[in-house]
Amino acid sequence: MKNRQIHLVKRPQGNVTPDCFALVQADVPALQEGQVLVQNLWLSLDPYMRGRMDDVKSYSAVQPLNAVMVGGTAGVVLDSKNPKFAKGDMVAGAFGWQEYGISDGTGQYGAPMRKVSDQIPLSAYLGVVGMPGVTAWHGLNKIIEPKAGETVVVTAASGAVGSVVGQLAKAKGARVIGIAGGPAKCAYVRDELGFDACLDYKGANITELLAEAVPGGIDGVFENVGGVIFDAILGRMNAFGRIAVCGLISGYNGQAHALGNVRSILTNRLKVQGFIVSDHLSEWPEALTELGGLVAGGKLKYRETVANGLESAPQAFMGLLKGENFGKQLVKLA
Amino acid sequence: MKNRQIHLVKRPQGNVTPDCFALVQADVPALQEGQVLVQNLWLSLDPYMRGRMDDVKSYSAVQPLNAVMVGGTAGVVLDSKNPKFAKGDMVAGAFGWQEYGISDGTGQYGAPMRKVSDQIPLSAYLGVVGMPGVTAWHGLNKIIEPKAGETVVVTAASGAVGSVVGQLAKAKGARVIGIAGGPAKCAYVRDELGFDACLDYKGANITELLAEAVPGGIDGVFENVGGVIFDAILGRMNAFGRIAVCGLISGYNGQAHALGNVRSILTNRLKVQGFIVSDHLSEWPEALTELGGLVAGGKLKYRETVANGLESAPQAFMGLLKGENFGKQLVKLA
Repeated sequence: MKNRQIHLVKRPQGNVTPDCFALVQADVPALQEGQVLVQNLWLSLDPYMRGRMDDVKSYSAVQPLNAVMVGGTAGVVLDSKNPKFAKGDMVAGAFGWQEYGISDGTGQYGAPMRKVSDQIPLSAYLGVVGMPGVTAWHGLNKIIEPKAGETVVVTAASGAVGSVVGQLAKAKGARVIGIAGGPAKCAYVRDELGFDACLDYKGANITELLAEAVPGGIDGVFENVGGVIFDAILGRMNAFGRIAVCGLISGYNGQAHALGNVRSILTNRLKVQGFIVSDHLSEWPEALTELGGLVAGGKLKYRETVANGLESAPQAFMGLLKGENFGKQLVKLA
Repeated sequence: MKNRQIHLVKRPQGNVTPDCFALVQADVPALQEGQVLVQNLWLSLDPYMRGRMDDVKSYSAVQPLNAVMVGGTAGVVLDSKNPKFAKGDMVAGAFGWQEYGISDGTGQYGAPMRKVSDQIPLSAYLGVVGMPGVTAWHGLNKIIEPKAGETVVVTAASGAVGSVVGQLAKAKGARVIGIAGGPAKCAYVRDELGFDACLDYKGANITELLAEAVPGGIDGVFENVGGVIFDAILGRMNAFGRIAVCGLISGYNGQAHALGNVRSILTNRLKVQGFIVSDHLSEWPEALTELGGLVAGGKLKYRETVANGLESAPQAFMGLLKGENFGKQLVKLA
């Protein structure tokens, strides 16, 4: 059986380009005792992958050249020599950018392979009930800890993480302001997800928009973007504000913005806390249980952008880095 | 009886200049029931005063124009109509830049007036056993929380706060690197205070100095300075590093440096926490007891720069903002 894979073959210089990737055919090896063969039906594309493509000190292992790109996947067990998994089981794991994966059942890249229920769509386990959802849950509950009546700002608000942050914050009684790119995303954030407002940063002066939208200042921030937006937010923080730094996607391609409003950290006694969700594996069961329950009950909405076929992954990933996706970016593999 | 005072009469535009201040003579009013008259023997000069001189949103009240400059003082009770204080008591308080003060005994500017012991020199209550000492204690114990073997960097290391931070961190088994301006301060920090090393930022490339001095990276930072030094430090942080932001003196006169190494907050999952010590009044008794005991036992060293006479305060303050002091900057009033 043939397994199609996408390898990283060149590290990007600034922007990611198609020639960074190569589509490779490999054989699916025969199963050994204890192993599980999974057909990946869905591949998750996430901003963190950009960081791994650089050969610099970062929060996680550098993506090796000429190897399968890392990534979260969801699929079905085709064959199993492991008593914990049976043919037909639906599983979420992290097999990377390829059509099939073999595991000893303990997982890859720090993300355990786990059986998932069919109560909610399989793709949700890569988004709202997966790594992005737990990311939102941790940043909001463990760093921002919003109180009722506080104002929380969420950047990349229509994305896989931001959309969950805002809905969870609303449920806690916070006033929630999203920031997103373009009127369609902002309308979705406001009208579908129920944020109190959404600011469209495209073609606008975000400092002025924020001044209008949050005259009383900001108490909590879930920061996915960085750059000028982060700087503008810093300039409007209230005393004792908390900023969960989850992503700085605007700088991922090299054009980093130097932060000017640093003094706000001191004058407002801010807590600015960077985090990545894989440092907090012990929280995953609690978070996933809560998120799964909310999705099953229709209380947590999400949206997906789906690219079709493994070969579409590089283009979809480049689009993600430019904000062209709308909600969770997925690749449907089969 | 005449009371000489220094008022703020003009807000600085960038650098503080002598014409921002005026020496004013006032009468000492007659004591009312419940009041205490104190002769201030020592005045504390501190960087936070610069922030209060600007009429902008900051962490504390703006210093009013044509009023006595705020400031910590230590002195002796000359007369008392308050049962809690008697003539001859030595007290620490916050009477500001003036020779005499009247209090109802509850304190001013959030700093309670308190009787102090004569076991240690009176001036120490404005430094190592006063607000600067508690500032050091809080930042180190409540934010940085160093473990034995970790590397802690302290900026403005020879100053009233930094010198305490480093000695306390050494006592906890950390490797402590100071940053200070000039060979004399660095020699003092290393040889007298017992830091493991001290980097002289003057005329040097601090990024290169840090790379040599902390090849294994930095786990904890006590940040008094900001600007290019803060940026260089950010670039050398280890995973899960903690940065207590206590001061950004390099930007106080307006020439703020935009921070370039922001991505380190995310990639290293840093906690960057601004604080001011007056938010933590409940910790003062514990901190002051510990610090007083260390000073009395000769286990906590400190150094003072003394200007003589109230009229010397403006010049001494301007020198402090340029780093011309060496250790705690005081004005001896009598």
